[in-house]
Amino acid sequence: MASIFSKIIAGEIPCHKIAETDQYFAFLDVFPCATGHTLVVPKQEIDYLFDLNDELYAGLMAFAKQIEPAIRQAVPCKRVGVAVIGLEVPHAHIHLIPMNSMSDMNFNNKLKLSQEELAETAAKIRSFLQ
Amino acid sequence: MASIFSKIIAGEIPCHKIAETDQYFAFLDVFPCATGHTLVVPKQEIDYLFDLNDELYAGLMAFAKQIEPAIRQAVPCKRVGVAVIGLEVPHAHIHLIPMNSMSDMNFNNKLKLSQEELAETAAKIRSFLQ
Repeated sequence: MASIFSKIIAGEIPCHKIAETDQYFAFLDVFPCATGHTLVVPKQEIDYLFDLNDELYAGLMAFAKQIEPAIRQAVPCKRVGVAVIGLEVPHAHIHLIPMNSMSDMNFNNKLKLSQEELAETAAKIRSFLQ
Repeated sequence: MASIFSKIIAGEIPCHKIAETDQYFAFLDVFPCATGHTLVVPKQEIDYLFDLNDELYAGLMAFAKQIEPAIRQAVPCKRVGVAVIGLEVPHAHIHLIPMNSMSDMNFNNKLKLSQEELAETAAKIRSFLQ
Protein backbone atom coordinates (compact mmCIF):
# COMPACT_ATOMS: atom_id res chain seq x y z
CA MET A 1 0.00 0.00 0.00
CA ALA A 2 1.28 3.45 -0.88
CA SER A 3 2.47 5.50 2.09
CA ILE A 4 0.68 8.72 2.90
CA PHE A 5 3.75 10.52 1.54
CA SER A 6 3.52 8.65 -1.77
CA LYS A 7 -0.12 9.72 -1.98
CA ILE A 8 0.90 13.32 -1.29
CA ILE A 9 3.62 13.14 -3.96
CA ALA A 10 1.11 11.68 -6.41
CA GLY A 11 -1.30 14.53 -5.66
CA GLU A 12 -3.93 12.18 -4.25
CA ILE A 13 -3.73 13.94 -0.88
CA PRO A 14 -3.30 17.73 -0.89
CA CYS A 15 -0.24 19.30 0.72
CA HIS A 16 1.47 22.63 1.15
CA LYS A 17 4.27 21.99 -1.30
CA ILE A 18 7.62 23.67 -0.93
CA ALA A 19 9.73 22.18 -3.72
CA GLU A 20 10.11 19.20 -6.01
CA THR A 21 12.74 17.60 -8.18
CA ASP A 22 12.74 14.38 -10.22
CA GLN A 23 13.67 12.40 -7.14
CA TYR A 24 12.72 14.46 -4.09
CA PHE A 25 9.75 16.33 -2.64
CA ALA A 26 9.38 18.83 0.19
CA PHE A 27 6.18 19.98 1.88
CA LEU A 28 4.98 21.40 5.17
CA ASP A 29 4.31 19.06 8.07
CA VAL A 30 0.63 19.56 8.93
CA PHE A 31 1.44 18.68 12.55
CA PRO A 32 4.37 21.03 12.95
CA CYS A 33 6.67 21.38 15.93
CA ALA A 34 7.17 24.99 14.81
CA THR A 35 5.89 27.24 12.04
CA GLY A 36 7.78 26.36 8.85
CA HIS A 37 8.39 22.72 9.86
CA THR A 38 9.08 21.05 6.52
CA LEU A 39 9.35 17.40 5.50
CA VAL A 40 11.86 16.38 2.84
CA VAL A 41 11.38 12.96 1.29
CA PRO A 42 12.63 10.82 -1.58
CA LYS A 43 9.86 10.10 -4.07
CA GLN A 44 10.88 6.46 -4.02
CA GLU A 45 9.11 4.82 -1.10
CA ILE A 46 11.90 3.49 1.09
CA ASP A 47 11.09 3.04 4.75
CA TYR A 48 14.42 3.58 6.49
CA LEU A 49 16.68 6.55 5.71
CA PHE A 50 19.86 4.50 5.87
CA ASP A 51 18.46 1.93 3.43
CA LEU A 52 18.62 4.56 0.67
CA ASN A 53 21.56 3.83 -1.60
CA ASP A 54 24.47 6.21 -1.23
CA GLU A 55 23.55 8.29 -4.26
CA LEU A 56 19.89 8.75 -3.35
CA TYR A 57 20.83 9.49 0.28
CA ALA A 58 23.40 12.10 -0.75
CA GLY A 59 20.90 13.70 -3.09
CA LEU A 60 18.26 13.86 -0.35
CA MET A 61 20.70 15.54 2.02
CA ALA A 62 21.74 17.99 -0.69
CA PHE A 63 18.08 18.77 -1.44
CA ALA A 64 17.46 19.52 2.26
CA LYS A 65 20.47 21.87 2.25
CA GLN A 66 19.06 23.71 -0.76
CA ILE A 67 15.74 24.32 0.97
CA GLU A 68 17.08 25.33 4.37
CA PRO A 69 17.99 28.96 3.51
CA ALA A 70 14.46 29.65 2.27
CA ILE A 71 12.97 28.34 5.51
CA ARG A 72 15.36 30.46 7.55
CA GLN A 73 14.54 33.55 5.51
CA ALA A 74 10.80 32.96 5.69
CA VAL A 75 10.53 32.06 9.36
CA PRO A 76 12.38 33.97 12.07
CA CYS A 77 14.64 31.42 13.78
CA LYS A 78 18.14 30.92 15.07
CA ARG A 79 18.70 27.69 13.21
CA VAL A 80 16.96 25.09 11.13
CA GLY A 81 17.18 21.84 13.07
CA VAL A 82 17.21 18.42 11.46
CA ALA A 83 15.55 15.24 12.68
CA VAL A 84 14.96 11.80 11.27
CA ILE A 85 13.11 9.45 13.58
CA GLY A 86 11.50 6.96 11.27
CA LEU A 87 9.18 5.15 13.64
CA GLU A 88 5.94 6.59 12.23
CA VAL A 89 5.31 6.80 8.49
CA PRO A 90 7.22 4.00 6.69
CA HIS A 91 8.67 6.40 4.11
CA ALA A 92 12.01 8.02 4.94
CA HIS A 93 11.63 11.71 5.74
CA ILE A 94 13.79 14.48 7.11
CA HIS A 95 12.20 17.01 9.44
CA LEU A 96 13.55 20.53 8.94
CA ILE A 97 12.43 22.52 11.96
CA PRO A 98 12.96 26.25 12.56
CA MET A 99 14.50 26.42 16.03
CA ASN A 100 14.68 29.21 18.55
CA SER A 101 15.14 26.96 21.56
CA MET A 102 15.73 23.29 22.29
CA SER A 103 12.05 22.89 23.01
CA ASP A 104 11.13 23.64 19.39
CA MET A 105 12.12 20.07 18.54
CA ASN A 106 9.54 18.37 20.72
CA PHE A 107 7.47 15.84 18.84
CA ASN A 108 5.08 15.60 21.76
CA ASN A 109 4.17 19.27 21.52
CA LYS A 110 2.71 20.07 18.10
CA LEU A 111 1.24 23.35 16.96
CA LYS A 112 -2.29 23.57 15.66
CA LEU A 113 -2.19 25.73 12.54
CA SER A 114 -5.03 26.42 10.15
CA GLN A 115 -4.83 25.52 6.46
CA GLU A 116 -4.65 29.26 5.77
CA GLU A 117 -1.67 29.68 8.08
CA LEU A 118 0.10 26.70 6.49
CA ALA A 119 -0.61 27.98 2.97
CA GLU A 120 0.77 31.39 3.86
CA THR A 121 3.93 29.92 5.36
CA ALA A 122 4.49 27.63 2.37
CA ALA A 123 4.08 30.55 -0.03
CA LYS A 124 6.56 32.60 1.96
CA ILE A 125 9.15 29.80 1.99
CA ARG A 126 8.69 29.22 -1.75
CA SER A 127 9.22 32.93 -2.39
CA PHE A 128 12.75 32.62 -0.98
CA LEU A 129 13.70 29.56 -3.02
CA GLN A 130 16.18 30.33 -5.74
CA MET B 1 38.50 29.65 21.69
CA ALA B 2 38.46 26.01 20.59
CA SER B 3 35.12 24.28 21.03
CA ILE B 4 34.88 21.33 23.39
CA PHE B 5 34.65 19.13 20.30
CA SER B 6 37.88 20.58 18.88
CA LYS B 7 39.54 19.77 22.21
CA ILE B 8 38.19 16.23 22.03
CA ILE B 9 39.42 15.84 18.45
CA ALA B 10 42.84 17.19 19.49
CA GLY B 11 42.98 14.67 22.33
CA GLU B 12 43.02 17.38 24.99
CA ILE B 13 39.77 16.06 26.45
CA PRO B 14 39.27 12.28 26.54
CA CYS B 15 36.39 10.67 24.68
CA HIS B 16 34.99 7.30 23.76
CA LYS B 17 36.03 7.40 20.13
CA ILE B 18 34.12 5.51 17.48
CA ALA B 19 35.84 6.45 14.22
CA GLU B 20 37.98 9.08 12.56
CA THR B 21 38.93 10.16 9.06
CA ASP B 22 41.02 13.07 7.78
CA GLN B 23 38.01 15.36 7.99
CA TYR B 24 35.51 13.79 10.39
CA PHE B 25 35.35 12.38 13.91
CA ALA B 26 32.76 10.27 15.76
CA PHE B 27 32.53 9.63 19.49
CA LEU B 28 29.96 8.76 22.13
CA ASP B 29 27.84 11.48 23.64
CA VAL B 30 28.61 11.40 27.39
CA PHE B 31 25.09 12.66 28.08
CA PRO B 32 23.26 10.15 25.90
CA CYS B 33 19.57 10.00 25.13
CA ALA B 34 20.06 6.24 24.68
CA THR B 35 22.93 3.79 24.95
CA GLY B 36 25.06 4.08 21.80
CA HIS B 37 24.18 7.75 21.20
CA THR B 38 27.01 8.93 18.96
CA LEU B 39 28.10 12.38 17.81
CA VAL B 40 29.49 12.85 14.32
CA VAL B 41 31.39 16.08 13.66
CA PRO B 42 33.58 17.72 11.06
CA LYS B 43 37.08 18.32 12.40
CA GLN B 44 36.88 21.84 11.05
CA GLU B 45 35.17 24.00 13.64
CA ILE B 46 32.11 25.36 11.88
CA ASP B 47 29.20 26.35 14.08
CA TYR B 48 26.14 25.75 11.90
CA LEU B 49 25.63 22.54 9.93
CA PHE B 50 24.28 24.33 6.87
CA ASP B 51 27.28 26.66 6.77
CA LEU B 52 29.49 23.71 5.81
CA ASN B 53 30.32 23.90 2.13
CA ASP B 54 28.53 21.35 -0.04
CA GLU B 55 31.49 18.98 -0.21
CA LEU B 56 32.21 18.94 3.53
CA TYR B 57 28.49 18.60 4.29
CA ALA B 58 28.08 15.69 1.88
CA GLY B 59 31.14 13.99 3.37
CA LEU B 60 29.80 14.42 6.90
CA MET B 61 26.48 12.85 5.93
CA ALA B 62 28.27 10.00 4.17
CA PHE B 63 30.46 9.44 7.24
CA ALA B 64 27.34 9.22 9.44
CA LYS B 65 25.87 6.65 7.04
CA GLN B 66 29.03 4.56 7.28
CA ILE B 67 28.87 4.46 11.06
CA GLU B 68 25.15 3.79 11.43
CA PRO B 69 25.24 0.01 10.72
CA ALA B 70 27.82 -0.54 13.46
CA ILE B 71 25.65 1.29 15.99
CA ARG B 72 22.62 -0.75 14.97
CA GLN B 73 24.55 -4.01 15.25
CA ALA B 74 26.06 -3.08 18.60
CA VAL B 75 22.95 -1.70 20.27
CA PRO B 76 19.54 -3.39 20.00
CA CYS B 77 17.23 -0.84 18.35
CA LYS B 78 14.62 -0.48 15.67
CA ARG B 79 16.31 2.44 13.98
CA VAL B 80 19.15 4.89 14.34
CA GLY B 81 17.58 8.33 14.54
CA VAL B 82 19.28 11.51 13.39
CA ALA B 83 19.16 14.94 14.99
CA VAL B 84 20.95 18.20 14.49
CA ILE B 85 19.88 20.98 16.81
CA GLY B 86 22.85 23.28 16.98
CA LEU B 87 21.87 25.57 19.82
CA GLU B 88 24.41 24.23 22.32
CA VAL B 89 28.03 23.57 21.34
CA PRO B 90 29.04 25.97 18.52
CA HIS B 91 30.53 23.15 16.43
CA ALA B 92 28.22 21.36 13.99
CA HIS B 93 27.37 17.85 15.14
CA ILE B 94 24.98 15.11 14.13
CA HIS B 95 23.37 13.05 16.86
CA LEU B 96 22.95 9.39 15.90
CA ILE B 97 20.56 7.90 18.43
CA PRO B 98 19.49 4.26 18.69
CA MET B 99 15.69 4.39 18.78
CA ASN B 100 13.12 1.96 20.03
CA SER B 101 10.40 4.53 20.59
CA MET B 102 9.79 8.20 19.89
CA SER B 103 10.76 8.99 23.47
CA ASP B 104 14.34 7.85 22.85
CA MET B 105 14.97 11.20 21.14
CA ASN B 106 14.26 13.36 24.15
CA PHE B 107 17.05 15.80 24.90
CA ASN B 108 15.48 16.58 28.25
CA ASN B 109 15.80 13.01 29.44
CA LYS B 110 19.43 11.90 29.42
CA LEU B 111 20.83 8.62 30.69
CA LYS B 112 23.50 8.53 33.34
CA LEU B 113 26.08 5.99 32.20
CA SER B 114 29.40 5.24 33.87
CA GLN B 115 32.69 5.64 32.01
CA GLU B 116 32.94 1.84 32.03
CA GLU B 117 29.54 1.47 30.37
CA LEU B 118 30.45 4.08 27.76
CA ALA B 119 33.82 2.41 27.07
CA GLU B 120 32.15 -0.96 26.65
CA THR B 121 29.55 0.44 24.25
CA ALA B 122 32.20 2.27 22.20
CA ALA B 123 34.29 -0.90 21.93
CA LYS B 124 31.27 -2.86 20.80
CA ILE B 125 30.35 -0.30 18.12
CA ARG B 126 33.96 -0.17 16.90
CA SER B 127 34.00 -3.96 16.64
CA PHE B 128 31.24 -3.75 14.00
CA LEU B 129 32.91 -1.06 11.90
CA GLN B 130 34.23 -2.39 8.64
